[in-house]
Amino acid sequence: MTISQRPRRGRPGYDLESLLGVAVTVFNERGYEATTMEDLARRLGITKSAIYHHVSGKDQLLRLAIDRALDGLFEVAARAQASGGPAIDRLEHLLRGSVAVLADRLPFVTLLLRVRGNTEVERNALARRREFDHLVADLVRQAEADGDIRPDVDPAVIARLLFGMVNSLIEWYRPQAEGSADLADAVCAIAFHGLRTSR
Amino acid sequence: MTISQRPRRGRPGYDLESLLGVAVTVFNERGYEATTMEDLARRLGITKSAIYHHVSGKDQLLRLAIDRALDGLFEVAARAQASGGPAIDRLEHLLRGSVAVLADRLPFVTLLLRVRGNTEVERNALARRREFDHLVADLVRQAEADGDIRPDVDPAVIARLLFGMVNSLIEWYRPQAEGSADLADAVCAIAFHGLRTSR
Repeated sequence: MTISQRPRRGRPGYDLESLLGVAVTVFNERGYEATTMEDLARRLGITKSAIYHHVSGKDQLLRLAIDRALDGLFEVAARAQASGGPAIDRLEHLLRGSVAVLADRLPFVTLLLRVRGNTEVERNALARRREFDHLVADLVRQAEADGDIRPDVDPAVIARLLFGMVNSLIEWYRPQAEGSADLADAVCAIAFHGLRTSR
Repeated sequence: MTISQRPRRGRPGYDLESLLGVAVTVFNERGYEATTMEDLARRLGITKSAIYHHVSGKDQLLRLAIDRALDGLFEVAARAQASGGPAIDRLEHLLRGSVAVLADRLPFVTLLLRVRGNTEVERNALARRREFDHLVADLVRQAEADGDIRPDVDPAVIARLLFGMVNSLIEWYRPQAEGSADLADAVCAIAFHGLRTSR
């Protein structure tokens, strides 16, 4: 087998990782449904069959991209649980980690948050999102049971509003050299202490 | 002129208002770009020319729908400014009013928040959204200058995170008979006082 026939490799310069990066950009620009393999091939400057060296089709690209976002969020949730301590501290851990995942994997999370459930891959993604939301709401509920969180707001509503703040990043955040720790501080300052100065 | 020839009226049952309601629903389901006047006519069960009795085209429907959302938000901002008092109180007024607008005009705001700037109408909408964001950030800045808001977070970031919470409603809020006051309370409780109980 000559080098040019080696399977699962595209033209030099396109490994699966960079192919996925371009695919996600195009999906976000034109919408997943509206994007064809032809569009991807044109953007990459390679043939469709070169793409098929890497993936079975558009669907697999979507799954890989969405998993990049979801796996990041679930790893953060697992680390938050493993960190021990009271639920409110684990919740803060989860929030900070989620901001970092969104900032680091912005195009992947953008794609995830636009999924509407039109395909099997998308329905699986929505199911995993719901599972993640439940994890968050459960942490809020525990923190409320511990007396650490105000009892006058429904934990499911709190979970949604917190992730409303976090998820809004996809609309306005631009990756910065100094990272996203300041932003995580801002989210947690508002979420846990509120804006009002105590006077 | 017979009744059936009266201009600016469609078939009985479709005035401009109900036509707009259906159009917004279809735009949100299929995307504005992907929706044709034919799609709208089919959904409404009327002819395209019956739609043209009311509006000059798809573009005008989009503008009317988006204005419904934006006008609501700007009215709230004007009322907040007119309410007087310290900036932090006007900011709370603005937040509560915005929750009410989103809850009451949910499909219109959903359409607004998905606009990407592909047409003149959409670019105008984005410009008005930016203007609104500036109003919010200015209020935050004033409240910070008054010493009423924590000085450690950038006012523009605060404005974006607050409206991240509010705008997330389009993803999960279902209109309720009892209205949205509880939800406005929840948003303001988190925004101004934070989740942590003071112990």
